[in-house]
Amino acid sequence: MRDKMIGSLKEALKAMGLADGMTLSFHHHLRNGDAVLNGALDAASSLGISGLTVAASSIFPVHAPLVEHIRRGTVSRLEVNYMSGPVADFVSQGGMAEPVIFRTHGGRPRAIESGELPIDIAVVAAPSADGRGNLTGTKGPSACGSLGYAMADARCAKRVLAVTDNPMDRVAPASIDQSLVDAVVTVDSIGDPAGIVSGTTRMPRDPVALVMARCAAIAIKASGLLVEGVSFQTGAGGASLAAASYLGDMMKDLGIVGSFGMGGITSHMVRFLREGLVQRLYDVQCFDLEAVKSIAEDERHVEVSASLYASPGTKGPLVDDLDVVILGATEIDLDFNVNVHTDSSGRIIGGSGGHSDTAAGANLAVVVAPLVRSRLPIVVDRVTTVSTPGDTVDLLVTERGMAVNPARPELREALDRAGLPVMSIRELREVALSITGVPRSSRSKGRTVGIVEYRDGSLIDRISEVS
Amino acid sequence: MRDKMIGSLKEALKAMGLADGMTLSFHHHLRNGDAVLNGALDAASSLGISGLTVAASSIFPVHAPLVEHIRRGTVSRLEVNYMSGPVADFVSQGGMAEPVIFRTHGGRPRAIESGELPIDIAVVAAPSADGRGNLTGTKGPSACGSLGYAMADARCAKRVLAVTDNPMDRVAPASIDQSLVDAVVTVDSIGDPAGIVSGTTRMPRDPVALVMARCAAIAIKASGLLVEGVSFQTGAGGASLAAASYLGDMMKDLGIVGSFGMGGITSHMVRFLREGLVQRLYDVQCFDLEAVKSIAEDERHVEVSASLYASPGTKGPLVDDLDVVILGATEIDLDFNVNVHTDSSGRIIGGSGGHSDTAAGANLAVVVAPLVRSRLPIVVDRVTTVSTPGDTVDLLVTERGMAVNPARPELREALDRAGLPVMSIRELREVALSITGVPRSSRSKGRTVGIVEYRDGSLIDRISEVS
Repeated sequence: MRDKMIGSLKEALKAMGLADGMTLSFHHHLRNGDAVLNGALDAASSLGISGLTVAASSIFPVHAPLVEHIRRGTVSRLEVNYMSGPVADFVSQGGMAEPVIFRTHGGRPRAIESGELPIDIAVVAAPSADGRGNLTGTKGPSACGSLGYAMADARCAKRVLAVTDNPMDRVAPASIDQSLVDAVVTVDSIGDPAGIVSGTTRMPRDPVALVMARCAAIAIKASGLLVEGVSFQTGAGGASLAAASYLGDMMKDLGIVGSFGMGGITSHMVRFLREGLVQRLYDVQCFDLEAVKSIAEDERHVEVSASLYASPGTKGPLVDDLDVVILGATEIDLDFNVNVHTDSSGRIIGGSGGHSDTAAGANLAVVVAPLVRSRLPIVVDRVTTVSTPGDTVDLLVTERGMAVNPARPELREALDRAGLPVMSIRELREVALSITGVPRSSRSKGRTVGIVEYRDGSLIDRISEVS
Repeated sequence: MRDKMIGSLKEALKAMGLADGMTLSFHHHLRNGDAVLNGALDAASSLGISGLTVAASSIFPVHAPLVEHIRRGTVSRLEVNYMSGPVADFVSQGGMAEPVIFRTHGGRPRAIESGELPIDIAVVAAPSADGRGNLTGTKGPSACGSLGYAMADARCAKRVLAVTDNPMDRVAPASIDQSLVDAVVTVDSIGDPAGIVSGTTRMPRDPVALVMARCAAIAIKASGLLVEGVSFQTGAGGASLAAASYLGDMMKDLGIVGSFGMGGITSHMVRFLREGLVQRLYDVQCFDLEAVKSIAEDERHVEVSASLYASPGTKGPLVDDLDVVILGATEIDLDFNVNVHTDSSGRIIGGSGGHSDTAAGANLAVVVAPLVRSRLPIVVDRVTTVSTPGDTVDLLVTERGMAVNPARPELREALDRAGLPVMSIRELREVALSITGVPRSSRSKGRTVGIVEYRDGSLIDRISEVS
């Protein structure tokens, strides 16, 4: 029954037939605590392998050793949904010959399932696994909850290698089952629990965030969508969490119950479920320990694949059923295009994640962002990088007023009726500039280091080298 | 949110692009209560469609109207895992120009997932469905529990049409989710509950069955496999149920706990789970109401796809993890080949189902059958149809003695040591003939009306027309 167990990562990658130029995939459920991507690439490097493509759903600061693997030639291409930290800096500074391909959380499974992104070996970090290859994220010292981002990889990769630090007798039900897994390796640790999930995601104390959150919640109510059966997604950022909290209070006052909460799930969403404010949670990624505990215990807290969550290649991803999504932004421009890939100097600091998927799917996509951040205006003439196209963004809420996409006159009308401080985005731009002064343009014209794919695979922007 | 709802089966099939010569697939979870296959073919017929291939996991007596659809030319080909009743009779009598393709429960998803059996429209009977296409078998007036046999179809078919009689607000968790489903039709009834599941599957009173069952249980114990962590599958037939019951008593006495029980699940298996005799159940098909209730409520009762259950095309189906399976037989021959497709006159009366999948996977495949049935010997020189190859069958238990496959000398030794009445299969054949006399050979030499595919897709036998 233990026939899929292999002694070490190195042996396992050899057994999988690892060869130069192959594509290895990784998921980011262990976030900034992940030790599996580094471990697998160390093993590949020690096998003398070169020219790998790393298709990781996200890259975090913990993945800094990847820089050395790129320099050494072990890795020559990256395909990610999000990237921050030393690897992102290295890429921005022109460290790679090949541009990084950026996808969305829905675009990635679409590309995998359509054959556009073929994976030779999916390396799946598994908080618990049995020797037959049944995997779950809900148990073990490195428990991360949902394994949603690994599911398309496991289903479509030629070979699937699970890596665990918690071998179990038999895992059932499994998030990824033995029919999909070729081999299982046990290592001492797949990651640092402190980096995987936070204890709990905390409400912000920042007064600006609280003001924005309150305005966003009021605007959502004014939009008319806050009715029985409402569905929503909020992020784990401070303003987003606070907005969700205000929405919850409003739902209680109105006596309504939501259909579902979705997204990266936090303790706050779990509270919504427990208090009966939503009927269920769809969870593609757990953000904190409460969420991990809940997905393990509560059958109304449903693990979903990234494909079901957001892929535009399916017959109806869950993002299409969202009433409201609350999103962040690094920049937003006069056409409501949003940048979450780079800072205003063009340096890579993130990626779309589910940003453009949820914006495209939701009836109301609200961007909540401070008008000025680090002495720079958030509202700009033209975003440095287009992550999410403006025609999918409905409303911008800042601490100094909100702006409605002119393509949504009925929303504008509803907010005006509610007496909300609606301005044009151009006016918000003026207010911002009156505080910051006109920043010097720093749009780089260097070599392309990143290609931004929209969720359907079309090219939406390029990211240039910064000096 | 109701955007996938279509008013009628006819409209829905039209919307799916139904055309002459297409392949429509169906599952058999509603068993002899199913109204969906008949309903869909009536609709296709009324649209003037012809030349359809019906890929149904099983065909039951309730599907008698299919005969008329074949006669009329609406349907010209059948691909099934099991077939009984008027359609089987019609096929045996040469009613179809094209031979029926018989697969196993594991061979079917293998063929679907490999592209060998392409499906144009999967018609999925769904005891509950929401308007977005999330389906479950655990709720509704026609609840059938697991939807395991429909999963490969839903994943791989070009179009997926769900048919329900219990529209719900939102189904989550879902057995088949909205990312896979194109359209949902609500009909008055998808089936007759009395034909879908029995109230409870009853233990046999037939003394012959009880004797065989007791012998089988003792032999299994003697084989040495009845130890902590044992896994097993038993059918819903009388002797099989009784053998399971004896095994349960032995496990209690020995103080051991099994790893899993699997297969079509009955109330008896559910009792094993509740009493702590097994840690979990893997369920590809519920046989009675207790099983349906249990799969809905108990997370240790795990729904599995036919692919995970039995497909040899995957990286390790659950049948490979079976210690013991108890199987039936219409005939078994001197080489231990088993026939479950036809009676001794060559008439189609069933099919492999999971027979050859579990025999191939299990460490110990036990066939339990009376030596004589309807005045005919069960042990024959050569089976009329080879369903399961003899090299995957380890032991035959009859009411008058047991025979071990000579390829398993260590099993023979263990049973001898335990003082069990082991004979050669040739001796059992002699005993049978001494009771029945030598039956006249009736092997038909007519036209091929059925092709029996082994689980890997290779040809294992042909079934001929009978007069």
